[in-house]
Amino acid sequence: MNKLQVDTVSKSYPIFFSESFLALHDAIKDINKSYSSFVIISDSNVGPLYVKEIKDVLEPFQKNILVCDFEAGETSKHIGTIQSFYKDMIEFGADRRTLVIALGGGVVGDMAGFTAATYMRGLDFVQVPTTLLSQVDSSVGGKTGIDFLGYKNLIGAFYQPEFVYINVSTLVTLPDREVSAGMGEVIKHGVIGDELYFTYLEDHVDEILGLDSQIMMETIEWSCKIKKGIVDQDEKEEGIRGLLNFGHTFGHSIERLKEFELIHGECVAVGMHGELVLASKLGLITSQEVLRVLNLIQSYKLPIMIDGLNTESIYQDMFKDKKTTDKKLVFALIEKIGTSYLSKDTIDKTLIIESIEEIME
Amino acid sequence: MNKLQVDTVSKSYPIFFSESFLALHDAIKDINKSYSSFVIISDSNVGPLYVKEIKDVLEPFQKNILVCDFEAGETSKHIGTIQSFYKDMIEFGADRRTLVIALGGGVVGDMAGFTAATYMRGLDFVQVPTTLLSQVDSSVGGKTGIDFLGYKNLIGAFYQPEFVYINVSTLVTLPDREVSAGMGEVIKHGVIGDELYFTYLEDHVDEILGLDSQIMMETIEWSCKIKKGIVDQDEKEEGIRGLLNFGHTFGHSIERLKEFELIHGECVAVGMHGELVLASKLGLITSQEVLRVLNLIQSYKLPIMIDGLNTESIYQDMFKDKKTTDKKLVFALIEKIGTSYLSKDTIDKTLIIESIEEIME
Repeated sequence: MNKLQVDTVSKSYPIFFSESFLALHDAIKDINKSYSSFVIISDSNVGPLYVKEIKDVLEPFQKNILVCDFEAGETSKHIGTIQSFYKDMIEFGADRRTLVIALGGGVVGDMAGFTAATYMRGLDFVQVPTTLLSQVDSSVGGKTGIDFLGYKNLIGAFYQPEFVYINVSTLVTLPDREVSAGMGEVIKHGVIGDELYFTYLEDHVDEILGLDSQIMMETIEWSCKIKKGIVDQDEKEEGIRGLLNFGHTFGHSIERLKEFELIHGECVAVGMHGELVLASKLGLITSQEVLRVLNLIQSYKLPIMIDGLNTESIYQDMFKDKKTTDKKLVFALIEKIGTSYLSKDTIDKTLIIESIEEIME
Repeated sequence: MNKLQVDTVSKSYPIFFSESFLALHDAIKDINKSYSSFVIISDSNVGPLYVKEIKDVLEPFQKNILVCDFEAGETSKHIGTIQSFYKDMIEFGADRRTLVIALGGGVVGDMAGFTAATYMRGLDFVQVPTTLLSQVDSSVGGKTGIDFLGYKNLIGAFYQPEFVYINVSTLVTLPDREVSAGMGEVIKHGVIGDELYFTYLEDHVDEILGLDSQIMMETIEWSCKIKKGIVDQDEKEEGIRGLLNFGHTFGHSIERLKEFELIHGECVAVGMHGELVLASKLGLITSQEVLRVLNLIQSYKLPIMIDGLNTESIYQDMFKDKKTTDKKLVFALIEKIGTSYLSKDTIDKTLIIESIEEIME
């Protein structure tokens, strides 16, 4: 089993890469704390597939196990669902020595992490991501949270897990659309910080879309390594971590305004297009390189355009982004593939509007 | 202005002791971050007394200020009130560089701290405690939280402030009952860890109840020093910090079952009585020393008995305490005044029941 160590200011913890759930038992044992019980948080998609298997793996600990589940999807990601977890956990008798296990995609990880961060002022938790998007991105780095009044992840905490356990074999049950969506974040990693990785992604489109296990393992590890490298330097997103939001200022607005009809990775794909156009209008990246990225996005069957939205609405909605301070938008600007920096000055509204127009069908 | 440095694993920050709010300006300036705006969270008791003065102190920063207030009292300490803060803060345009100011007693500090801990995954905040109880206890150490389904502080976070600013002159507006209640926690500090302090409290009853400013300053600093010494060693309450819960296992049950008719410090006073009886039944503290503590509690006009509750209900309710793990109650046991340790083994139910009976009128 491969292993990668994340070293943030608040915590150091491993990411394990495996092809089954079997070693999860030893991973928990290695934390070396005596847990009183387990709470598995999962959703209506992932629960039926893997909860039984996880329960079997936990069996030797001979502790009570509670399963909290909820209707899959971003629309469940609100304080009401979290309150239902709190309630179930109280009735179950969860205490400070209960271990929370987040089993599922990004929404599960965000919600389970926030529940763990706030129940009795913080329980230990582990991330067991089962989608490509959560394996390469959301499970690493300690961001947890829920949406509030239409604002994505407005309420949350930076709260690091005890470990992340990635079982790449779960990807075989993932719908093609979810695999592509995960590739949105993967491509982002290449564009913001690693041209070599970007080229690797160009060279392995078929193997990745075909879920070749060796290539998937390499891809996921590589993405985790890039993300870890950034998070280690800036756990609380006070600087460089903002680069991971490339595509997200445009993307989050699109996601909200489309009322979650498009999934996260798809919105990030369209968002990267918009933010690349912006960087090119600012005289940074060349049109040729923009085209190279757009080609890769499309190779992975992701959209680069949207329809049915109003330009001004998208612009106004961007100010709901958490990176916005003093009413100033912040963008991860791409100089060339693999090289990026965070915008410091206010960017002219006209340029942003023009960039939005170029991604409208 | 006196200063005491708290050094927890996650953060090092000062406690300032002053006789006015004037130096709050410099304290904020010294954080040396450019805040985009201020959010003052206060309640219906404290707001009318001090919000204007605080706004005047903040005026030179020339930033927008939002005041969030709520009906004073423990019954406001729930997720609904927090959601109303989130909503007001969104409308106001609070962003990641907004500074939250907790202005008030323990309930204000707990709620403002939790709001700061969770809005956009964490804003900076400062504690400006205005009651004796919050100045000597709750504002120091980073505990934040809200009640949930009748469980005290079930939801919360460990989240340290940028600083604590104690203006002892606020105590003159405090009702006598609140001063006494604050003395519950002060006496606790002496009993668990400092016999010399305990003696000092015996020697200065009149000055303290008369709010002599020199003596109050000494008392508050001394209590903060004891608390800081414990929190520095065990920020997350994984061990020694549990000693600060002396009187609270009994006390919290009484507080809940009396439906907040008694205030926190009063319940802790009765709770200390119960837990001293328990320690004496376990062959630890002598009856003579128990009497000495009870005398001091009563000197400060605090109750040592309760009526109208059922013994078994109090016992059962103790299991709702967050210190309970694996369904085992944990107590701070007093060996003698100034010396205590945390219980490790299960304590016989009969002994606990007998101790409860001794505090029933």
